[in-house]
Amino acid sequence: MFDILHRVGVKTSLDTVYTALATPEGVAGWWTTDSTGDSKAGGRIRFRFSEHGKDIGGFDMKIVELVPNASVVWEVVEGPGEWVGTKIRFTLKQEGDFAIVLFKHEGWREPVEFMYHCSTKWATFLLSLKSFGETGTGRPAPNDVKISNWH
Amino acid sequence: MFDILHRVGVKTSLDTVYTALATPEGVAGWWTTDSTGDSKAGGRIRFRFSEHGKDIGGFDMKIVELVPNASVVWEVVEGPGEWVGTKIRFTLKQEGDFAIVLFKHEGWREPVEFMYHCSTKWATFLLSLKSFGETGTGRPAPNDVKISNWH
Repeated sequence: MFDILHRVGVKTSLDTVYTALATPEGVAGWWTTDSTGDSKAGGRIRFRFSEHGKDIGGFDMKIVELVPNASVVWEVVEGPGEWVGTKIRFTLKQEGDFAIVLFKHEGWREPVEFMYHCSTKWATFLLSLKSFGETGTGRPAPNDVKISNWH
Repeated sequence: MFDILHRVGVKTSLDTVYTALATPEGVAGWWTTDSTGDSKAGGRIRFRFSEHGKDIGGFDMKIVELVPNASVVWEVVEGPGEWVGTKIRFTLKQEGDFAIVLFKHEGWREPVEFMYHCSTKWATFLLSLKSFGETGTGRPAPNDVKISNWH
């Protein structure tokens, strides 16, 4: 199994970052504006992406774990085959003025080229989360940072 | 062993991207302005970083492989303990208008928190490489994107 790892520090409270991860309204501020669903463990969240107004797919996640100001874990139940069954884990902690986010997208079966792409995209979205937490404005899709011919 | 993976597409020629990777003058345009050394396989490159004019460390690399417009491989011979012995591999290919860079920082012994940090920093530097290749201006250190309390 192969994992994507990232670490960012958001100069705000743990509570602000946790809310941005634990609710669809929060995730809409930094990953994709089209985030809908539950805010409790065992529930589901649906993330959709579009380009020029056209749906280009997305992910359905089961909310595996929600520990206030400490962790959020999703499991991918629908989406691209490479993602299904993988987990996305956010672990939070305070360090000085920063809410630190340790990110792990774990359980990729093979380090396919799509995994390289997703690793870089996740970095841009975590920096979007940082900006959202610090300024109130992130860069969720469809206004996300384009990194290549793949998006 | 654990690897950091990334993929970016640079809207320019393979030759432009290769030169930005294969020469210290090129690397100075997107990773750290203080890049000096050789431009041939078997040689060494020295990368140094500073903050407010003060040296904060760096990396010495052996140039393991240089294949024009196809690949650049470095091996870390001096630097933080977690980095020594790891390899940094850039594989290039053309896709339409884009020079695609597949990046792999391979051979981490443990997925320590510093690896999470370096993964995100590498993403910012590869986007700096993209900008450097497309516009002539990147964001090499000390003008790099700050992502946390760690830099």
